[in-house]
Order: sequence, then structure tokens, then C-alpha cells
Amino acid sequence: MSEVMRMSKLYAPTLKEDPADAEIASHKLMLRAGMIRKTASGVYTFLPLGYKVLSKVENIVREEMDKIGAQEIMMPALQPAELWHESGRWDDYGPELMRLVDRHDHGFCLGPTHEELITSLIRNELRSYKELPCTLYQIQVKFRDEIRPRLGLFRSREFIMKDAYSFHATQESLQETYDDMSRAYGTICDRCGLDYRPVEADGGQIGGKVTTEFMALAPAGEAELVHCTCGYAANTEAGECLARPTEYEATELKKIHTPGVRTIEELAEFLGIPESSTVKALSGKDAEGKLVVMFVPGDHELNEIKAERAVPGFELLTDEEMESFGLHKGSMGPVGLPEGARIVAARSLKGISHWVVGANEDDYHYVGAEEGRDFTVDEWADLCVVKPGDCCPDCGLPLSGSRGIEVSQVFQLGTRYSETMGATFHDEDGVEHPFIMGCYGVGVSRTVAAIVEQHNDENGIQWPFNVAPAHVCIIPLTVGDDEVQPAAEKLASEIADFGFDVVIDDRKERAGVKFADADLIGWPLQVVIGKRGLAEGNVEVKLRRTGQKKDVSLSTIAELLRFAKRNARKHPSGLGTFAGIFE
Amino acid sequence: MSEVMRMSKLYAPTLKEDPADAEIASHKLMLRAGMIRKTASGVYTFLPLGYKVLSKVENIVREEMDKIGAQEIMMPALQPAELWHESGRWDDYGPELMRLVDRHDHGFCLGPTHEELITSLIRNELRSYKELPCTLYQIQVKFRDEIRPRLGLFRSREFIMKDAYSFHATQESLQETYDDMSRAYGTICDRCGLDYRPVEADGGQIGGKVTTEFMALAPAGEAELVHCTCGYAANTEAGECLARPTEYEATELKKIHTPGVRTIEELAEFLGIPESSTVKALSGKDAEGKLVVMFVPGDHELNEIKAERAVPGFELLTDEEMESFGLHKGSMGPVGLPEGARIVAARSLKGISHWVVGANEDDYHYVGAEEGRDFTVDEWADLCVVKPGDCCPDCGLPLSGSRGIEVSQVFQLGTRYSETMGATFHDEDGVEHPFIMGCYGVGVSRTVAAIVEQHNDENGIQWPFNVAPAHVCIIPLTVGDDEVQPAAEKLASEIADFGFDVVIDDRKERAGVKFADADLIGWPLQVVIGKRGLAEGNVEVKLRRTGQKKDVSLSTIAELLRFAKRNARKHPSGLGTFAGIFE
Repeated sequence: MSEVMRMSKLYAPTLKEDPADAEIASHKLMLRAGMIRKTASGVYTFLPLGYKVLSKVENIVREEMDKIGAQEIMMPALQPAELWHESGRWDDYGPELMRLVDRHDHGFCLGPTHEELITSLIRNELRSYKELPCTLYQIQVKFRDEIRPRLGLFRSREFIMKDAYSFHATQESLQETYDDMSRAYGTICDRCGLDYRPVEADGGQIGGKVTTEFMALAPAGEAELVHCTCGYAANTEAGECLARPTEYEATELKKIHTPGVRTIEELAEFLGIPESSTVKALSGKDAEGKLVVMFVPGDHELNEIKAERAVPGFELLTDEEMESFGLHKGSMGPVGLPEGARIVAARSLKGISHWVVGANEDDYHYVGAEEGRDFTVDEWADLCVVKPGDCCPDCGLPLSGSRGIEVSQVFQLGTRYSETMGATFHDEDGVEHPFIMGCYGVGVSRTVAAIVEQHNDENGIQWPFNVAPAHVCIIPLTVGDDEVQPAAEKLASEIADFGFDVVIDDRKERAGVKFADADLIGWPLQVVIGKRGLAEGNVEVKLRRTGQKKDVSLSTIAELLRFAKRNARKHPSGLGTFAGIFE
Repeated sequence: MSEVMRMSKLYAPTLKEDPADAEIASHKLMLRAGMIRKTASGVYTFLPLGYKVLSKVENIVREEMDKIGAQEIMMPALQPAELWHESGRWDDYGPELMRLVDRHDHGFCLGPTHEELITSLIRNELRSYKELPCTLYQIQVKFRDEIRPRLGLFRSREFIMKDAYSFHATQESLQETYDDMSRAYGTICDRCGLDYRPVEADGGQIGGKVTTEFMALAPAGEAELVHCTCGYAANTEAGECLARPTEYEATELKKIHTPGVRTIEELAEFLGIPESSTVKALSGKDAEGKLVVMFVPGDHELNEIKAERAVPGFELLTDEEMESFGLHKGSMGPVGLPEGARIVAARSLKGISHWVVGANEDDYHYVGAEEGRDFTVDEWADLCVVKPGDCCPDCGLPLSGSRGIEVSQVFQLGTRYSETMGATFHDEDGVEHPFIMGCYGVGVSRTVAAIVEQHNDENGIQWPFNVAPAHVCIIPLTVGDDEVQPAAEKLASEIADFGFDVVIDDRKERAGVKFADADLIGWPLQVVIGKRGLAEGNVEVKLRRTGQKKDVSLSTIAELLRFAKRNARKHPSGLGTFAGIFE
């Protein structure tokens, strides 16, 4: 039997007004519904209802981890500085790492992630290829000193994560676990009712090369991503850019007087052509200080990570450096560049045979500049930030754009930590090798907020069945009434007996207050019991998600719910569970 | 169906030798059984088996909290310094409080306890007497910078606690919750298989007045306690001392030359009497600097907390101060003290009509000093550290002594925090009052270690059923064998289907290694499947706790276990579950 909660005993201080400092739906609604409270900037307490949701999400994560053979452990939050010195991250990680010293002046940090700790944990104890692969995980509090904590649970300084680490003898074995994890992460999102995309991403500070982010789509998300109906999706920072440049008619190289034109916008306007028909130049220097000029479609931005990948050490020039190289800011082009300048161009520009581009002379531009005839590109590369409308790299169709919340991420770490920290195993022949490692994170508290972002309306939250703090809220309209109150109590325990989590709003409050709170908190189904309906043997059920209402016989309601649950359309989050009642 | 674990996949690095720096059984055995590993001094990682036990204990705690209507929440580990300044504990708590500053130079501490945080959480939101009582709890990581972390999980710097806080309008309501909590704590100990005593204790830094500690009896415990067959128990620091002084025959006041005698030991030896027939004097001063001399039975120690309670501000004199008061160290007594000296005597001394005591003159003592005739006691008080053999304050029988591990504690806080931090509610008449508060802690990781202290032998751990990482370990003697291996697998899933947690030792290891590991890890029941037995349709079962072995038919073993479980003697920890098989 599931529990029956009582609103009269529940600590869930709901708020009528939106809190002043909450910008996004999840933050506002979780505060208003009495699920979380702010303790300090970026530091939150989970109140009983919020904690129930958090636990349900944790359990979903736990079940999916256990299914793929990952083993749960618990590492400490306090991590000795020495381990981070070993990996080199003590200095690299920056001010987001919260640091402290103990009473004996030993340095510690509060773990934002646990690569160092787990590597030190298994080294010297996990020794043989026979024990591999091995995947360990924990669900635990993490710390990151965000410079400007905001967006409620999305950018907080103390948060709950599931982090897993895997150890392998071969790349194939890593790939297998990586694929298992990726599938598990998809299932976790599905079970939590999230509309998500697995996207190509960048490794960032963790240091992985192959990595996928799981993005819950939501306007409040901080990440920009592109995706395609074919299934392709990528973070705009990381995805391949296949821009669609447009051709301008001129095919002859012709220098045009463009007085006062300095920017792409001005150039396009001056010529009356789209920005995508122009070519933008960006001057920089390589690691040795030599001049490199990069060319990208006029309507696209250079991606610095890609630029660095194409030209290691690449740095944009300052105005002074440009002058010293003899460059003309605002009219750079591939024709007539200083001797020795290396030209790197975005691959998409191959699609334009004749460029509209600067003439390396103030107030002049070229049209019809042809690669091979008028200038030579030294190297073609993927250089731009991808954007909606670009070609899908998988199928060529135009990409859509969305904002996304990164709820989880999988990384192939390789030997980044095992090598620096000397964690090795013996292969069949007794030869020592560093472990090949993977790491895998789920933002558990962040997932809770992402669910709210996707499941709410103007009245409050609409929890998917699987993660709802309770499934059914029973609202007796007259508490203490001789008939209504006992009927409500009896129904509550009947429904609970069928395995539902039930809450009964037994507070001595007006009906309007109870309805408003039920909508705000977001119980999937409300069952209203009033004197009049009861006289006819009826109760009213309301589906929170659609607002649909229906009168149902009190004697059959519990059985009906059980039936509905058993025959629900099999949405993995239980979304459709109660829909059948209204059909 | 419960899970079937596989030793071949399990990360449980067992050790053959005792680790060098582990002093006590729980620390040694949990390291050796591959359940915990040290990350830093006083900072531990729970490996998969240790984590399973920890989770089972957590769930027992959670169930008992939910049963008495406490609501689970999760507060942050990071606590703003301001809150601790409000309560006054930022300065009082000392170096055990781990402190840090964030990147904006705001002070934080890592919570060792959460009175400040919860008080600030509910103030301004819990407002009406109608919402009271309200009890909130969390199971969470805590931090305390022990000066010398030791004894494994007993004195660690990062540990898991359940802490609960209750808010009340009246003392009666607090008492009710306090009693509920005390009963729940007893049940938790019972369900974890702990032999424990609820003992009178001292509030310490939390600041409670009425408080009880739950002590698991174990020689490794740091606390000393006394207890009686009548049920009475107390921490020796806190319990009432009813010493049994013995009378010496002299009834006439007589000054005796005692050359060189300075200590009680020397005095007793000189006179050939027990120390309990002598009276010890301790000189000090009160808050105003006036001389106070305390008298206690010669075989007992002064308890400083009690001394302070009898004489606020009481401080023992230094040798210099004694001289300036004209006192003679080593021969102080009530007869002939300096003018104005206040005499405070242990109540137990009322039982001695004539004292053997110092004569306020070097090398001289009195025998036969009679209160009322030769001197006057200004005040009788409870002054001593109680010790085994003293009279039980409840029934008078001699107390037994034990060492104990404090696994949990309940406190009546009163208005200590609500008053300093301004947390108030409105009563029926709209009048504001500070909340009356209680707080209640269970050392969850400490409980795990306490269980091991009480349940082990020279071969390893003997987990009680309820908290065992798995209930049954199936040991196929020949892994990969055509008959043995499938029979083991089949049995494992049969037993698991009956709701047992099962592990199968499918490693390609010698039988001896498997037996040793099974004993070390401490699964309650081992089922050994070998080729020879199997030919006769038999397996061997071994009860870890007693070492009893028995051959049982393979076809009936699973059913037998189910039967045994159903008919087990109802020890709340499930201790007797498998015993029936061997009867």
C-alpha cells in the first residue's frame, strides 16, 4: 500500500504571488508550490514535496544505472587538494572550484566532479583485465561556485548529481559502456517525461573528446542547439556547420568603391544583397605569431574552439597588430593580402564560386573574386557556429533551432586521468596499461527543474505521473462533514491500496484555495467530493494536464483508476495514465 | 524479485591482512571486506557493499521517521555564516566547524548540524499554532573537523546523519514528539540488531537541557556508561552519582600524623583502609572569586559540569591561588578552613557520619570528623562522575559499567534558537511566541560501524539479516561446470524470487578463497554447491553466525528458506531468520 499524505500535516507553504527574483517558470513555480526555498544565492533547500519529486527522479536514475550493471558507491564531498594537483586541475579549474583548508592547514576542495577521487580510489586495487570493465556511480551533492547563480536549480552552487565512471582495457569496451549509458540516459529522460535531444557537444573542463549532451528542449535553456527531423542534433558550439551561402551574380573580379562600409551588414545593404552572399574575414595569428586570415560566410560567426582546432594557438589580432601587419580593418579579403598570410576558409564557402569580400583597401571591396583564379585557399575547415537553417550534416535538410537545458552528459575520457595519475591494469600478458575511462553525469536536481519547465501552465505545475509528489489529490469540499469526510478518507485508502500515492486535502480551507493549490502543486489527478454529488453517489475527477472534468460514481472510481493505470498508453513517464478515464 | 549480485562483477576488493592504521574491529573489517576505503584522514568512500549496508540502514531510519509523521526534506551542506552569527555559534563552535569563503568573499560553513538553517527556513513561513507541531528531517552528509580523526567511521570528518527538528506551541507537544522520537530511535537500533541503552546525557554544543543518548554497547566505544538491570542507564558524565562510601570506625575527631601523604591513594594505604572510606577535597573559586571547597568520596572524581551547575563559574584553583588562600595542597579538609570558605559536599557523603579527610596542615589528616559537630556543609549536591558499583538512582542496586558508541541522540532545545533568531508563531489569541523546539540525530554511518562492532568474529563480519548487503551467498565450487554452475544459477534466481537478496560467487577462484571472503564479508547464510553433493541432490548450508552446517536437498532448499523466513523468531533485526533450518 502506498502512503496517504495529509495536506493538514504537510509542510508545503504555497505562495500566491510570483517571487520577485525568480525569472523562469521552474524557479517561480517550485518556490510558489512550496517545493524549494533559497538558503543563499544558488543554494536551495528541498521542502517535503520537492524532496519527494527529487527522490523519484533519483530512483529512476538508480534503476537505470543498476540495469546496465553500474554499481552504486558514495565518495566524499571533501576532496584532498593533492589529488587535484596530481591531475593538474587544482590550478586549471579556476574560481568555480570551492576550496578550503582544514584545521591542520591541509587543502581540500568541495567536489564539482570526481574523476581524481575515483581514479585514486581504484588505482592499486583494480589491477587485472579480468576485473574489467567496471562501472561505479554515486548520487551525491556537488558544488560549483558559479560567479552569478541564477535560474533557480539550473545554475546553483550546490546541487545533486549522479556521476558514473567506467574503467576499460580497450576502446571497444569503453564504446560499449558509453552506448549503454547513452541508452540509459535516454530512458531516464523518457521516464521523467522530458522532450530531449542527445546532441554533439564539447568536452569542456572534464576533458573528454567524444561526448554527447542530453538536452531538454525549453526556451529557458541556456544552450543553443540545432536539430533535424532525421534525428541529428548538436550544440551550436560543437555541431558541424554546413552553412548555405548564396551566390551573387558577378563572376568577374571587380573592385567596387564602398565609401564608409566597414561591416558585413553595411556591405550587404550597400550592394542590396543578403549577408549570406558576402564573405567575412577574420585576421589572427598562429602559435608562432604568423598571420592567418579566416574566411566565413557573411551571415555566420567564427567558432573559437573550431578555429583553435584548425590552427592551434589561433588568436584574433588586436587593432594595433592588424595595423602592424598592414591589414585594413573592415575591408580585408583574400586578394592582395600581405606576403606569407595563410588563408583558412570555411568549407561552406566552397559552395560559392565568386566571393563578395574586402579588397584590403579602405572603402573598397571586391565582387566576383574566384578561388584558384584570383586567390588560393591554403586550407578548408569547419569554422563557424552552426545556426538554424544550415544544412543538416546527416541529411542536408535545414536545421531547426531550439534552446536546451543540459540535463546529462556522457564523455569518453580516454587515458587523461589514468595516465597523469598512474592508474594502470595488467593485460593478459602481464603488461601494464593505463585504464581507458569514461564518465557520465546526470544533473538530478536540474532534471527536476527541467521537468517543470516542460510541464506547466499559467496555474502551476503538471507533473508527469512517474515523478509526481503524489498521483491523486482527493479534495473533500467540507472537511468535518459527517458524510463527505468519511467518504473522502475511505476513497483515499482504497486508491492507495491500488498502488497510487494519494494526498487528501483535509485542511479547513475554502474550496477555491484548495483548487488553486492543487493546480499549483500539480497533482496529475484531482478527485473532488462534495455534499451534493455525494447525495447522488458521485465525485468529480479533473485531469490536471488538460483541465478535463467528469462525474464518476464513487463506488467505481477506485477500480476505474486501477483499470486506467493498467490500460494506460505506455508512455514511459506514465503521462497517459489517467487519460483513459476521460475518453 | 530481489536482485542477484555476481561476485565476478562486484567491486569488493577484499584484503587478506589487517590494515596497519585500523585499531578497532569495525574499521579493520570494513576495510578488509572491501566495504570502505579511506580518501583522507577521517574521510571515507563507501564501496558497493558498504553502500548497500548504508542504504539499508538509511531506509530503516526513513521508515521509522515516516511512521511518526516526520517529513523528509533536504537542506544544503553549505550554510551562510550570517545564520551562525545570528545564533552566536559562529564564534562558539570552534575549530571543528569547517569554514570557507566563496569567490565573492562571503563566509560559509559546512554543516555539522542544521539548527540555524532550519530555524531560518521556517521563520516567517510557519506562522500559526494550527500548523504545529511540525517535524522535518533529512538524511545528509555532515562535516566536523575532528582534531584527530580515528576509529574509522566513529570519528570521521565527513559522515552521514539523519537529523530531525520539531517545532511546537507547548512543552507538552514537544514532550510528545520527544517520546515518539525516542521510541523510534529504539526501534531503529532494534531493527539494526544493536544491543543498546538509552542513557541520560549532556546537551553539549547543541544546547539542549533534556536529552537522551542511544548507546550501542561495545568495548571500542568512546563513551563510558553505567546501567542497571532495572533499565536505568546514564553516561558517566551526566548520570546522577550515588556513590557507596564506606565508613571508617573512628567516631572521635582525631588529628593523625601522616608524613609525606599527599594523595587519596597514599592516605588509604597509610591507614590501611579503602579509598571509599576517605574524603577528597577540591578547592576552587566561584564566579566572584570567592573560595569554594568541594568534597567528594575518595574513590570518585569531580564532574566539572556538575560542579559548574552547583557553583556557577566554578574553577579549580591553581597551586599559586591555593597558597594565596592559605590552603595546604594534599591535606585540605572541612575542619579549619580559612574564614568564609563555602563548603559544598557530594550528597553521597551524607552516608558517612565521620570523615577521613585532610587537616589543613601539611602531613596531617583527621579521622572521625563529624558534620554538624566539627564542621558545617553549606550545600549538598550531585558532584561526582558516576562509576560502576555506585547505587542505581532508580532502584539502588549496584550499577554495571560498559563502554558505548553514541549512535543517536534526542534533545529538547526549548527556545534557544527560536528566541535568538526570532522565529515565532501566533497562538489562538494572535499573540506571538518563540517556537519550542526539539532536535534529534542518528549517526547513520556510525550505526553501520556499531553494527560491525557488535556482530563479528575472528573470520569477519556477521551482518544481521535486515542490514546484510545480501542475505544468501551461493558458492558453486566449480565455476563453469556443466552441472554445478547451472544448478547454482537456478537456485540463485529461485531464492531471489522469494524476496531474498542473493549473491552468487561465480569467480574462478579456489574454494578456500571463496569461503574466506564469504566469512569476511559476512553474508548471513552460505549455500555451497559441489559436484559430489549435487550427485546426491544435496547442497550444504552454513549459518555464518554460528558456523553450523547442514546438508539440504537442492530441490527443497529455496522453499525451506522461505519457510524459515516466515516462521523466524520475530527478532526485529531478522537475526533468527535462518536459524530454523538448523533446528
